[in-house]
Parts: sequence; structure tokens; C-alpha cells
Amino acid sequence: MQDVGMRDGLQAEPVFVPTADKIALVDALSDAGLAKIEVTSFVSPMAIPVLADASEVMQGIRRRPGVVYTVLVPNVRGAERAIEARADELNLVMSASETHNLTNLRMTRAQSFRGLSEVAALARQAAVPLNVSLSCAFGCPMEGDVPVPTVLGWCERFIDELGARGVTLCDTTGMAYPSQVLALVRVCRERWPQAEWTLHFHNTRGMGLANVIAAIEAGADRFDASLGGLGGCPYAPGATGNVCTEEIVHALQCMGYDSGVDLPRLVAAAKRLPALIGHPVPSQIVSAGRRLDLHPVPRDLDAIRERALARDG
Amino acid sequence: MQDVGMRDGLQAEPVFVPTADKIALVDALSDAGLAKIEVTSFVSPMAIPVLADASEVMQGIRRRPGVVYTVLVPNVRGAERAIEARADELNLVMSASETHNLTNLRMTRAQSFRGLSEVAALARQAAVPLNVSLSCAFGCPMEGDVPVPTVLGWCERFIDELGARGVTLCDTTGMAYPSQVLALVRVCRERWPQAEWTLHFHNTRGMGLANVIAAIEAGADRFDASLGGLGGCPYAPGATGNVCTEEIVHALQCMGYDSGVDLPRLVAAAKRLPALIGHPVPSQIVSAGRRLDLHPVPRDLDAIRERALARDG
Repeated sequence: MQDVGMRDGLQAEPVFVPTADKIALVDALSDAGLAKIEVTSFVSPMAIPVLADASEVMQGIRRRPGVVYTVLVPNVRGAERAIEARADELNLVMSASETHNLTNLRMTRAQSFRGLSEVAALARQAAVPLNVSLSCAFGCPMEGDVPVPTVLGWCERFIDELGARGVTLCDTTGMAYPSQVLALVRVCRERWPQAEWTLHFHNTRGMGLANVIAAIEAGADRFDASLGGLGGCPYAPGATGNVCTEEIVHALQCMGYDSGVDLPRLVAAAKRLPALIGHPVPSQIVSAGRRLDLHPVPRDLDAIRERALARDG
Repeated sequence: MQDVGMRDGLQAEPVFVPTADKIALVDALSDAGLAKIEVTSFVSPMAIPVLADASEVMQGIRRRPGVVYTVLVPNVRGAERAIEARADELNLVMSASETHNLTNLRMTRAQSFRGLSEVAALARQAAVPLNVSLSCAFGCPMEGDVPVPTVLGWCERFIDELGARGVTLCDTTGMAYPSQVLALVRVCRERWPQAEWTLHFHNTRGMGLANVIAAIEAGADRFDASLGGLGGCPYAPGATGNVCTEEIVHALQCMGYDSGVDLPRLVAAAKRLPALIGHPVPSQIVSAGRRLDLHPVPRDLDAIRERALARDG
């Protein structure tokens, strides 16, 4: 399990979470046993002021051996800062959809790829592994379905031309569905067995967990998820953000999968979020507890039983 | 697909939805192609005042050939009213957990079963088919896991002693998980191939759709779901109610299953709910649309592209 709440979640919040609190949250995620943590984003502080303290956060966190501390990097300037901050991995992003890439990144896909190549050269020099996140891998909210060969074509370029260690297939707006996930991940797994395949799902249409289960069946390596379900619109009943880390860990644990995560610690970390961001989190495990977090038996149960049996006369 | 929103959903709402609106909603569900609709509950009007108009609703609905109009019936008095109202099926309920049965129905399970037997005798006389809903089939919020033999034992008594046509395995408080569902439904399907198996899931811990998919794999016949996701707490970000009919239909449609339901009609019906109940519904399809309900391409896309290319010089 990889948590992206500190980056993908917090960047969607209007409030600046104090640097010390960010550091404490990342440390809590480390202690909970996450395999990988996307700590922050080295974007321009002007673009996303709430993540302006990226370097300080990277400097402040306690690095637990075995945990990969990755960061999002939009360009060469960001990559330089990230390498300086000793990130374990650089995560780059572009979209499988031309329209989405243009509207979201203000570049054509070809231009984005050229940018990625420059960052990749820098990463190679610094011997920092690279992951590329491909947005809209399961559909574009403006173009609709993205052809599978288009998706595979970009994966090929990331792995073969950029030398990426891993690719994240991102369901940016919650369009993925389980049979589609199963088919795409199977092809990727088979074609690039050595690559690390991460799946990034949103729960926009309620299919997040079902997609995770389909991806596991197809041999995916990792999942992005967000502590507390951060990153959606927490007031809307149909929260549209990232799948929630503790919901996924909880479900997988029920099914007998060991994600290596200590669920009570994870939930404790999620419960610290509302005070920091000023509103509740959409996590259904925070609100409902784990399935065997039992409710007390009513004190008057014996009396209820006696009254019931007395009616039998 | 079976919709239970008119009963299980509306009974959780404090407001009385006018009888004419209830009738119009049931008719909309019929038109949308639902296979079965739980129209109402013949409980005491004192116990659940918002469903006091059960007979009037049953009298007012337009019955579409092929659709099964079922009703919940708690006791002989309710069964008499339901039969008088020409219900196509009586749905009875008791719990697999003694503690839950006592706290929820104020009877021991043995007493509940005796009551069910009396209703069954009446239904047999009137030649009205019977379904029994077994609460807490996947766990009890107070007792914890309910042993599988206990669940199977009650199913056996419903089918063999009461002559029930079908059994609904209810995940009353959202404790079911996919591998558990797969195993239990497989056993039931194999042991009673002639019975109609319905699954009733709640989305309390985010596992609703994943459980539906597991149950389909195991050979389940039908699913309960609630229009708009009614029946939870719609203000809480982690809505804890029934799985949402249009979310399930949408996901199954994406995966190529034909549930026979006209999704746009279903969504249109769901969109009528907020005005009737006075608050938004948790449905993520109502808020986000279907996966291919595309967003418009920005008008200035060409300008964005030109500006981007101009930077290449």
C-alpha cells in the first residue's frame, strides 16, 4: 500500500497544514507500515501554496528503513529540489488523453513527454528511480474511453525510453470498472513483468474497492490510496476523491491479504486529520469502525428476553 | 435487481412522503425495469408512521406485468393486510443473531420463527409466495461473527419448514466482505439450487459493490439495493445505508451484465428524491453521472494548444 494523502489529499485542501503536522502525519504513516508514501510535491510554491514546504517536510520526516519516500515532480526545477531533498523516487505525471493533458498541464502530450525525458536524464545522473503516473488510463472525462493501445504506447515509452522502474495507471476521474481493470493490468503485467505496477483509483462512482480487487487478481504490485479518503469533496455525500487507505487496508485484511499495514495505527492517524483540515474525512472506517469493532450488548438484554418469554405464558 | 428504497429507505426518513409521491416513485421504478420492488411494509402504523399508508400505496401503483411487488410483513396482522392488498410476495424477517433479534424485534429467534410459521400458514392458504430475510447473516454488530452453520440452519428451516421460495441473506450492518460472501453464497446455491437467493448489502465499510460482484460469481439470483442510496445517514460523509440501486446497476452495466434496468430512467427517479425527503441522496451516480457522461471540452482548448506550441518556438 502506498499513501498519497499527504500530496494528492492535502493539495486539494484550502488550508495550509503546518509543516510540523505534515511531518508527524508522514511519520505516523511510516509507523503504520505503509510500503511507500508520497510525501509531497515539488511544484512551484506559487501554483500550490499549501505544499510550499516540500523541502522542509522531506527534511523533517523520520525515514523508516524499507519505506520508499516518493515525491511528485512536475519539471526539472522540481526534480532538482527533490533530488536535493533526497527523495527515494521521483514520480512524474502526464495524461493518456491529449485533451486532459492540455487542460490540466497546459501542454501537449508530446511536450509533456519531452519534459519527462529531461527529468529522467537528471534522475539517471543522480541514480534516483523513476515512476510515471499516467492520468486518464481508464478514460478521460472529456474524450471518453481512451484506446488501450494509446495507454500501452505511453507505458512502453515510460519503461523503454525513460527507464522508469514503475508505472502508475491512474483512474483520474473514477471511470474505471473492474472488468476493464482486470484486462488492462493483465496485459501490462504480462508485457512488462519486471516493471512495478501501481493502480490509482478514485471512488467517484463507487467502484474503487471493486477495482482494487480486480487489479490484485490481475497481478498489480501496489495501490495508491489516501489517508482518511482525503482528496475528494468531504462535504458531498458522494465523495469523489481517492480511495481511502484504511478502507482498502480493512477490506483486504478481511479477505486475508497482508498489506503489512497496522490498521489501528492507520485509523488513529486518519482521526488526526479533521482537526488539521477543519472538516470531517470521508473515511467509512473512521465513521463506522472495523467490522469486528463490536457495539455493546444492551444492559437490559436479560430483561428484554424475560419479557419476551413471559408473553409465551 | 430489486429496489428496497421505498420500504427500507423511506422508513429511515423522518418525513412522511405523500402517498401520491410514493406511488409515482414505485411506478417510476416499474418503468425503469426493476425485477422486484419492495413497495412498503405492513407494520403497525404506530410503529412506523411514515409507512402508515401501505394499503393505499399498494392500491395506487400501476402493476407492470413481470414485476414482483413484494412487501415486508412483521406478523399475522400485517400478513392479512398485505394479502388483502394483493402483494405478489410476503417478505418476512428475523435475525441469525439471538442478541440482534432480541434487541431489534424484542423476541427470541425461536419466538420469531413461530411467528413466521403462522404467517407462512396464512400465505400458503392464500397461495402467496414467501421470502425470508435473514438479518446479520454476515455478522452481528454485538455478537460478532455468526457461525456459518447457524446461518445455514435457519435457511434450511425457512426453505423446508416454511416453504419459502427465496431467502435474502442480509448484511444488516455492513460486516460482509467479498471472500466471505463468495463462500456463503456458494454453499447456499449448491445446497438449495431451487431457492431464489437474494443478497442485501450495506455499504457501511465501503464493501457493497465488491460484495455484489463476489455474490454474482457465486451464483446469487438477485440483489437488494435502494434508490438514491436511501436508508443511510445522508449527511454523514461515510453513508452507512443500503447499497445504491443506480450505483450497482451502473457498475454491472459497465462490466457487461444486463440487469434489465434502464439506467437513465432510474437516475431520473433518484433525482426526484431530494425534494421529497428534504436532503440530498448519497448516490454517487446522481452526483457524478455515468462514466461516459462527458464534460464539455473547454472552449479555449485550441488557444491553449497554440500557446503551448508557441513556447516550443
